[in-house]
Amino acid sequence: MPPALQDIRDAADRIKSYAHRTPVMTNESFNQRIGAQVFFKCENFQKVGAFKFRGACNAVFSLSDEEAKRGVCTHSSGNHAQALALAARMRGIAAHIVMPENAPQVKKDAVAGYGGKISYCESTLQAREATLRRAVESTGAALIHPFDNERVIAGQGTAALELLADVPDLDAIIAPVGGGGLLSGTSIAATEIKKGIRVIGGEPEMADDTFRSLQAGKILPPEHPKTIADGLLTSLSELTFSIIQSRVERIVTVSEQGIVDAMKFIWERAKIVIEPSAAVAVAALWEKKVDLSGSKVGVILSGGNVDLGKLPWQRAP
Amino acid sequence: MPPALQDIRDAADRIKSYAHRTPVMTNESFNQRIGAQVFFKCENFQKVGAFKFRGACNAVFSLSDEEAKRGVCTHSSGNHAQALALAARMRGIAAHIVMPENAPQVKKDAVAGYGGKISYCESTLQAREATLRRAVESTGAALIHPFDNERVIAGQGTAALELLADVPDLDAIIAPVGGGGLLSGTSIAATEIKKGIRVIGGEPEMADDTFRSLQAGKILPPEHPKTIADGLLTSLSELTFSIIQSRVERIVTVSEQGIVDAMKFIWERAKIVIEPSAAVAVAALWEKKVDLSGSKVGVILSGGNVDLGKLPWQRAP
Repeated sequence: MPPALQDIRDAADRIKSYAHRTPVMTNESFNQRIGAQVFFKCENFQKVGAFKFRGACNAVFSLSDEEAKRGVCTHSSGNHAQALALAARMRGIAAHIVMPENAPQVKKDAVAGYGGKISYCESTLQAREATLRRAVESTGAALIHPFDNERVIAGQGTAALELLADVPDLDAIIAPVGGGGLLSGTSIAATEIKKGIRVIGGEPEMADDTFRSLQAGKILPPEHPKTIADGLLTSLSELTFSIIQSRVERIVTVSEQGIVDAMKFIWERAKIVIEPSAAVAVAALWEKKVDLSGSKVGVILSGGNVDLGKLPWQRAP
Repeated sequence: MPPALQDIRDAADRIKSYAHRTPVMTNESFNQRIGAQVFFKCENFQKVGAFKFRGACNAVFSLSDEEAKRGVCTHSSGNHAQALALAARMRGIAAHIVMPENAPQVKKDAVAGYGGKISYCESTLQAREATLRRAVESTGAALIHPFDNERVIAGQGTAALELLADVPDLDAIIAPVGGGGLLSGTSIAATEIKKGIRVIGGEPEMADDTFRSLQAGKILPPEHPKTIADGLLTSLSELTFSIIQSRVERIVTVSEQGIVDAMKFIWERAKIVIEPSAAVAVAALWEKKVDLSGSKVGVILSGGNVDLGKLPWQRAP
């Protein structure tokens, strides 16, 4: 069942003392370039540097004491893993994390730093799931899926809840889409709070399975996805697909160059660090593939975890 | 004459509708590592990406209409140039900027983008001053020195004024020192508002002329200064020296590696872009060269203008 607005409000209460209420930033140069008034919800400043902490925190603190004492587990390429490890540590329980061997080192270090117990696997879905199954069987831990989970989705929706509390008259809201947890939670919060608000997903052209799935009317898998926005490589679940199908106006696909250019502009002009997946939502405006001129637009900057030694605009020293 | 606290309060009123009241950020990981409660005053989010806008704006809007109509001029390696160009544009007057040819491209572009009229010169003090003299003679523009100017110093002091309004019980405040405008304004505001507050300057070991000047009791010139903190290469003036001598507890010198490490930590963990000169003040804490454990410490993050293609921790692609 998709979460209702009340579930998102409950999530906001539940995570209030653990998560940051992140600031909303504006940037005049960006507004001038885009021709819209843009409000950036800075989830890069969230705990663990990503919105993922909201969903993980809501899921962990929704468990009964009986469930919680066996710990939690998940598979994740990064931000959800850090988020679950930290939320578990805050509740004083174990977090078992299955990570692909080729995840960025900065993310592996962070998971370990938050006390997560890492099991490495190959970077195929099959290997992840087999490793995860073994972890669940041996520990009895509660599986907290990165997005195919109502409580996670409700938690992710709290970012839009706060954004609309701060800027109630938004005409549109844009979030990136990978597995669809953030976009689902955002779309429920936004459309329930403000009838007629336009909810738009940003997706890399090079990993456009959500765009194609909405056109086909059924979930289509990613086809050899390859994008710098490494948080957006996953496919939708039936749950996130059904929510997005009913509440999201459209998916805007963006080029790799657009992602890099938008990311660099935000770093250079707004002076904040955002990761490529966050830049995908910015690029939807940057590439002007949807007409939002003159509108008030909220953009969820989903995270800021990047390997500073491997930046896409870098020249040889 | 050094500005008084009232001059700084007047400056705050004067620039209020032009400058940002920048946010104060905290970071738990940094606090844990340092063992203090640190409050970052985010002048990287200021107009033109640096505190310099405060001083330039105060100076430009302090001019009489008669003076203003002949424009303003200055020489600067970067942030002051951008700041003066923008402040002049806001007042609708010309800004003549003398810049060294070897200034970072991103800074040249920014000055031109704000409508500044650039005259390039060689990067020696002599060449700068000769070029500047010609600009003044040919235009009658008012010279707005980057730091040897009471109104500029008063403007720079407004950052500390705001910081102490937001966090009144600071035990100490740290700012970087180059020509000394920021540290002078900061020290006047801080010591006048809060008796006994410790004011500390951060300076690169590789450009430690302020440190040596305070020890010698007279201004000593920089000796082949060479630091990544390219905003801090200049020498003090008699005015800034006398203010710093009477109000600053000490200068802490920091290593180049410390500057880079502190800068990288702030980017990675606080998710904000700061320039090396700003990281010098952070590095004073990072390298633990002054005992501030258990204290509440304000740090002025002076700016965020960096060339993203040339980062100090960068590996070959």
